[in-house]
Amino acid sequence: MAIKLVNEVRETKPLIHNLTNEVVMNFSANGLLAFGGSPIMAMAEEDAADIAQLSDGVLINIGTLTEPHLRAMILAGKAANQKDVPVVIDPVGVAATSYRTEAFQRIIDEVQPTAIKGNAGEMAHLVGITLETKGVDSVGEGDSEEIAKKVAEKYNTIALVTGETDVISDGQEIMTNQAGHEWLGKVTGSGCLLGSILAACLSTSGTRLEQTMAAARFYGLAAERASRHTTVNGPGTFAACFIDALAMDITKLEG
Amino acid sequence: MAIKLVNEVRETKPLIHNLTNEVVMNFSANGLLAFGGSPIMAMAEEDAADIAQLSDGVLINIGTLTEPHLRAMILAGKAANQKDVPVVIDPVGVAATSYRTEAFQRIIDEVQPTAIKGNAGEMAHLVGITLETKGVDSVGEGDSEEIAKKVAEKYNTIALVTGETDVISDGQEIMTNQAGHEWLGKVTGSGCLLGSILAACLSTSGTRLEQTMAAARFYGLAAERASRHTTVNGPGTFAACFIDALAMDITKLEG
Amino acid sequence: MAIKLVNEVRETKPLIHNLTNEVVMNFSANGLLAFGGSPIMAMAEEDAADIAQLSDGVLINIGTLTEPHLRAMILAGKAANQKDVPVVIDPVGVAATSYRTEAFQRIIDEVQPTAIKGNAGEMAHLVGITLETKGVDSVGEGDSEEIAKKVAEKYNTIALVTGETDVISDGQEIMTNQAGHEWLGKVTGSGCLLGSILAACLSTSGTRLEQTMAAARFYGLAAERASRHTTVNGPGTFAACFIDALAMDITKLEG
Repeated sequence: MAIKLVNEVRETKPLIHNLTNEVVMNFSANGLLAFGGSPIMAMAEEDAADIAQLSDGVLINIGTLTEPHLRAMILAGKAANQKDVPVVIDPVGVAATSYRTEAFQRIIDEVQPTAIKGNAGEMAHLVGITLETKGVDSVGEGDSEEIAKKVAEKYNTIALVTGETDVISDGQEIMTNQAGHEWLGKVTGSGCLLGSILAACLSTSGTRLEQTMAAARFYGLAAERASRHTTVNGPGTFAACFIDALAMDITKLEG
Repeated sequence: MAIKLVNEVRETKPLIHNLTNEVVMNFSANGLLAFGGSPIMAMAEEDAADIAQLSDGVLINIGTLTEPHLRAMILAGKAANQKDVPVVIDPVGVAATSYRTEAFQRIIDEVQPTAIKGNAGEMAHLVGITLETKGVDSVGEGDSEEIAKKVAEKYNTIALVTGETDVISDGQEIMTNQAGHEWLGKVTGSGCLLGSILAACLSTSGTRLEQTMAAARFYGLAAERASRHTTVNGPGTFAACFIDALAMDITKLEG
Repeated sequence: MAIKLVNEVRETKPLIHNLTNEVVMNFSANGLLAFGGSPIMAMAEEDAADIAQLSDGVLINIGTLTEPHLRAMILAGKAANQKDVPVVIDPVGVAATSYRTEAFQRIIDEVQPTAIKGNAGEMAHLVGITLETKGVDSVGEGDSEEIAKKVAEKYNTIALVTGETDVISDGQEIMTNQAGHEWLGKVTGSGCLLGSILAACLSTSGTRLEQTMAAARFYGLAAERASRHTTVNGPGTFAACFIDALAMDITKLEG
């Protein structure tokens, strides 16, 4: 199934509007482009809604949130909802400060997400469970299955809790993905880019669970593939080879 | 001629003030630095004009436009015009939303560009021709020669229409460049970086047509060279090798 | 001593709040992560202080300064001072425009830096000595020992003057570092990333001079190591291998 959906992305080249943080913009654009999507980044309140409605998917990532960005995110998310364009929310660092907790609430009060993705600490926070976090990273893993299910139920969405095992839930079913590599944790924005790739997969013809599983599994396989490349000698060379792997056939990745 | 002008950039190391989008800032700075220029990025209204007047060239790229950035761009462009510092405008995504169309008009009402560069869809839009676009990318190619000539005439500038064949015009003459590689299209900001490199070339002693041709041709040759590198295995490794190639002798690139 | 302090960073993984410029955010985050720190970037006035107080170090870098960023920097710096969190200031381009000169003064009026780092031109400007600069780069080297000592005295801080030889002073003692490689000068943000790594080292148990020396020396050794890598063929491949080297054992680097 993952093969079929990834191939579909490569045929349709969905335009994904990334309202994301300033740290990862370049990496997210290159990764999404390698994967087969068409990235666009636009943070002005003046045209965020117009671009969202032209797009096949919208990503809202609060990593380096400011008030003007937050206003653009809400405009884009609402506009996407009106046209049934899928919306992914990545609540980066939501547990770190009260400002971020409130910002997420302001978004969710006005925007219905198709999917929410985050690490265990972030996702737990959204349903009132406290896990240890360090800055924007999760330290404890907690019970990811319970967290995914609760987030999906509470926000009427698909939940993707990333970690050594990724857990996906629609509030009833649970799916897990084991593909991946620890070196992803050494590349800034690897979680953020997965949000963009998830937005692209949500434009395909599978069910929401299948689409989310395709994104997580392909991403993990690409990381495994990159880690095996002979020129990889650390996180810098890994990042370049990971972008390469995102452009490969999924059959080649599994081989 | 291209050799001479590129070598001149490497001797003079022109300071280029890049008012560009947030997605490509790092790639543009590294590419321009590899090429031989001295990049500076400054987006504050408070000193955009001062920095423009210290510079040997100014690039205005509206890729992730916001109102504060737009105001800084206009201040920098006007200041550059006063001191005869060359100005390149890259109207990224100008056809995508009315905000971007109006923003370009606000810039052009106050700033005289030395050159305008863009893909066929963007450049066509500037002279009232509608081509198919997708986000910030051009889908149709149209008649690039006609488009280049019309843009050059209408805005009294040099026009560079990028594509499989790049077309350059001053409104009368037409020059074309075939050097290049399709993998450039898989690297975010490859068009944007060409704008920075064009700004550097406009500080040399050739005619405007020669300077623009030198930029486009060198850029294409560097892409070809990078594509032949044995460690290139996809867009991630290509991007790193492309930066390497931008730092090479042009004679080495043609060899 | 450098080995001990770098190993300490890798054990404690200090959370470093980087209020830095938009050009280098991704490179700084990846470099700091490779080195062993935990990067966080947050530029909102709403939570810059909260995040600074959660952190083990704060970096203030004025490379692409705007007024909202400046306000966030001052809030973060003051909050860090209250909790004895070390603060590094990198006065990028401080001599280039009066806005930047004044902005540095506004920061220093409210924030006590643990260390100030910059190139010779920037650091000289802070103590009223004029050196030739070009954009954000220093051209002349001047008497770095005198400059370092004066900056340290005037601002009651540790001064790190970068250059072919890095000079460190606390106002009385002088230490120098010769490790390094000229290719660092071909990678945008290599000076900025050193500021983030210095902030991480300031969280260890050495004296301020030892901590600063550890950062400068490790950084130079990593550059030397990367320059020797067989796949390095220019600044693009060097940058990736340099990130790799930042993740290595310091004993491996010296070998």
